[in-house]
Amino acid sequence: MTLPEYRALVDERLDQLLPDGDLVLHKAMRYSALAGGKRLRPSMLLAAVDMLSGDRDEALDFACAVEMIHAYSLIHDDLPGMDDDQLRRGKPTNHVVFGVRVAILAGDGLLNFAFEVMLERALRFPGRERACLLAISEIARGAGVSGMIAGQCLDLEAGRGIAAENYEAMLEEIHAGKTAAMFVGALRAAARLSGANETELSALTEYARAFGMLFQATDDILDVVGSAPEVGKTIGKDERSGKLTYASVYGVDGARGRALNLRDRAVGALGPFGARAALFQKLAESLIDRTN
Amino acid sequence: MTLPEYRALVDERLDQLLPDGDLVLHKAMRYSALAGGKRLRPSMLLAAVDMLSGDRDEALDFACAVEMIHAYSLIHDDLPGMDDDQLRRGKPTNHVVFGVRVAILAGDGLLNFAFEVMLERALRFPGRERACLLAISEIARGAGVSGMIAGQCLDLEAGRGIAAENYEAMLEEIHAGKTAAMFVGALRAAARLSGANETELSALTEYARAFGMLFQATDDILDVVGSAPEVGKTIGKDERSGKLTYASVYGVDGARGRALNLRDRAVGALGPFGARAALFQKLAESLIDRTN
Repeated sequence: MTLPEYRALVDERLDQLLPDGDLVLHKAMRYSALAGGKRLRPSMLLAAVDMLSGDRDEALDFACAVEMIHAYSLIHDDLPGMDDDQLRRGKPTNHVVFGVRVAILAGDGLLNFAFEVMLERALRFPGRERACLLAISEIARGAGVSGMIAGQCLDLEAGRGIAAENYEAMLEEIHAGKTAAMFVGALRAAARLSGANETELSALTEYARAFGMLFQATDDILDVVGSAPEVGKTIGKDERSGKLTYASVYGVDGARGRALNLRDRAVGALGPFGARAALFQKLAESLIDRTN
Repeated sequence: MTLPEYRALVDERLDQLLPDGDLVLHKAMRYSALAGGKRLRPSMLLAAVDMLSGDRDEALDFACAVEMIHAYSLIHDDLPGMDDDQLRRGKPTNHVVFGVRVAILAGDGLLNFAFEVMLERALRFPGRERACLLAISEIARGAGVSGMIAGQCLDLEAGRGIAAENYEAMLEEIHAGKTAAMFVGALRAAARLSGANETELSALTEYARAFGMLFQATDDILDVVGSAPEVGKTIGKDERSGKLTYASVYGVDGARGRALNLRDRAVGALGPFGARAALFQKLAESLIDRTN
């Protein structure tokens, strides 16, 4: 299957899973979770299950849960007091439409509902409990207080009291958490559902980590190149957000160099899968292409 | 065991479980989750496991997860844009100490970590996966978008566009979600962990629902009686919060009458357990006593 085909599966299933009643809470959850987007994390989870000859039907609800967690993190990121963004994917952000209190609860709701969905699926077929528990654990860890949430918190705090010589290490830590951890959680969950061996689990972990950092690096580059080229900019913080980005720390050329290394690491990690990993290889390469 | 003994178990284990590093995220999580409180929900979960001859050791991490979820809900409730409270249990609220953005993430973190803790426990002893999955599901449902979060959202919205003749039904729905659902989730989780039969599961569900509503009713009464007695106040909204409360809808005397009915329902539900349910009976009665 192709990425657009995986994406269509995820879109359809998300629409079925999300509660669809009169509660403003449910409307707000649907507004953000069904707002489009590439569905990259869930699509990669499904593609990994296919690569490992797992059960795509079973994996679909786990993939959707990953997307719900991604959607909740964006709602909370956009809040006043956080990044205070008014637009997301060209539409007004959740709190602009529903107000801050509903937006906070809609985010909480999507996180909680992601677990409800995975747990229900885990209980549906006796004999699959342990594999499903392992998968849910991987996603929980990726999303959690040593993963995504830790990275988000460091990201917000990075503006405060850190010496310039620590920027590089801090940048690694922020993006390993904020961005890469959910890719790692999603692909490790795919491995757990598919009964992957240790070699495959390690390879997918290494790929996901490098891919996640690459994703963030190319995002940072596009952010700068897309608005105002600042080639050769020296080490520092992004002037608009006050945050550390690949472009602000390494300059655009330096960030491109890092991105190429990360692509090589990601593609290199795919060795154990041979030709079956073509989709994952192309995906890493396409991230580089979009910055040129 | 007595309630203070259960509480001590929960306090000690929470302290062990919560991450204790340099991250401000982790400090903020600990600040609220270890801020004291009666630990009522987790203590009742443990007491129910004891009553049903379940494994208290196994149940302890589930009990702590319930308390983490309670703590996260309070952090988010207290935020500006929500109830905007400055004090909680006599201490500055999380966002007053750590700022709004860290407080949002600390709440997210406690919710996610509650699942991490339960999942890890569920995986520790092969053969216990299904019972543990059922327990986690009960807690997730209680906390979720048809349970606690739905109730919180209705609570916030209740001030808007609802005719007075619908206040009573709305009040029921709000408190069934906001307050009772987590008691239901905690006690049903205890039943699942202990392999309770259907009669016991139903009885605990009925008790927990009545107890939760009673808890809220007596809280509402104390709120009014503790500040300014308004006996005989007619149907309406609470003047300070704009919310629907038992006291604002029924008046203090009417609310006391409802509370007595709820106590009878709660105590009546305990029939199947006989003398083993003494702690739960006393607990319901003690709630009434505190309003006199």
